[in-house]
Amino acid sequence: MWMAELAARSGLSVATIKYYLREGLLHSGEAVGQTRTRYDDSHVRRLRLIRALTDVANLRLDTVRSVIEGIEQAKSWPEAVGSAHRRLVPEPLTAPSDASLARVDGLLDRRGWTLREGGRHRETLAHALDTVAELGDEVDDELLDTYGDAMARVATVETARLDPSDRERAAELAVMGTLLLEPVLLTVRRIAQENAARAARGESI
Amino acid sequence: MWMAELAARSGLSVATIKYYLREGLLHSGEAVGQTRTRYDDSHVRRLRLIRALTDVANLRLDTVRSVIEGIEQAKSWPEAVGSAHRRLVPEPLTAPSDASLARVDGLLDRRGWTLREGGRHRETLAHALDTVAELGDEVDDELLDTYGDAMARVATVETARLDPSDRERAAELAVMGTLLLEPVLLTVRRIAQENAARAARGESI
Repeated sequence: MWMAELAARSGLSVATIKYYLREGLLHSGEAVGQTRTRYDDSHVRRLRLIRALTDVANLRLDTVRSVIEGIEQAKSWPEAVGSAHRRLVPEPLTAPSDASLARVDGLLDRRGWTLREGGRHRETLAHALDTVAELGDEVDDELLDTYGDAMARVATVETARLDPSDRERAAELAVMGTLLLEPVLLTVRRIAQENAARAARGESI
Repeated sequence: MWMAELAARSGLSVATIKYYLREGLLHSGEAVGQTRTRYDDSHVRRLRLIRALTDVANLRLDTVRSVIEGIEQAKSWPEAVGSAHRRLVPEPLTAPSDASLARVDGLLDRRGWTLREGGRHRETLAHALDTVAELGDEVDDELLDTYGDAMARVATVETARLDPSDRERAAELAVMGTLLLEPVLLTVRRIAQENAARAARGESI
């Protein structure tokens, strides 16, 4: 396809696409003759990923670049997912408490989950538990395991949607899924909470 | 307790607490003699809620005021939760598609969930589904029902933690739980995704 169709299919202006090309966020198309360039589905997908990262996740352009470099350099799509997660999560400003780190390790042990080296999930989760405790609430192990169990089911169904034979595409979809499906999941949680609250009081509506 | 202890227990400065008192975000204490004022646990809890809404959820002060008014005016804590959710969710900028609204209605029907009038969850969820579709992915009913099932379990355990005999406290905790536990749940989801991705490829780490 030519530039005009790429713009139409991606929902972005030609000027924006040219900017992403100059910035190296979008790979070059195939030169046809002296003046024309042909693009393909991989360009549409990449532009959709950039839109998801900028418009929906509100990331700065240097973070977007870093996420995309991670996808391109990863040797497998699970590695690409881990790399994207690492780049999406800011480093906690304060170190988490040992008690909360131990709680996270307990969850990982009970579920048989492992973490890649260089990731920040352990510290991020422990820090989130610290914040809850500091504000006078507490996440006990029952609730943490409920989250673990619920998210294990969710992740299994989410992962089954990806085509593992196309490394880059699976990585792109997995990163989009992490970000774009968060609002879906959280809204479903709020609906579920309101219904659980009413059910606990025996209210019908 | 006196102001100094309230500051210590809430983690806020005296100046900040006095500002919240002037702004009506914090209810007055009990006057003791001409110059002293006594505060109690309800003040500590309210200040923690304000911190959760401002520092963790990054809400503007007028949104915080609106959430707190909703908690105070609600006749039951499930109503307070619904009211807080409504005030926390910005109105979608564009109207969701009929197709996505029908998808949401299907989920509600299959689960037997109802929505209070005046809420925005139906439109918010439909809008999130539209965004995913616009960016070339799709949330099919299997995935939507997986989210519904997972969040129903999560909400049941979350709700069982609340003491329904104290309306205002249950409402405060429920609102804090909605906001503060979101980062916990989403980090657990990312850990689960990385492990599911590796499991799908038969990788050990």
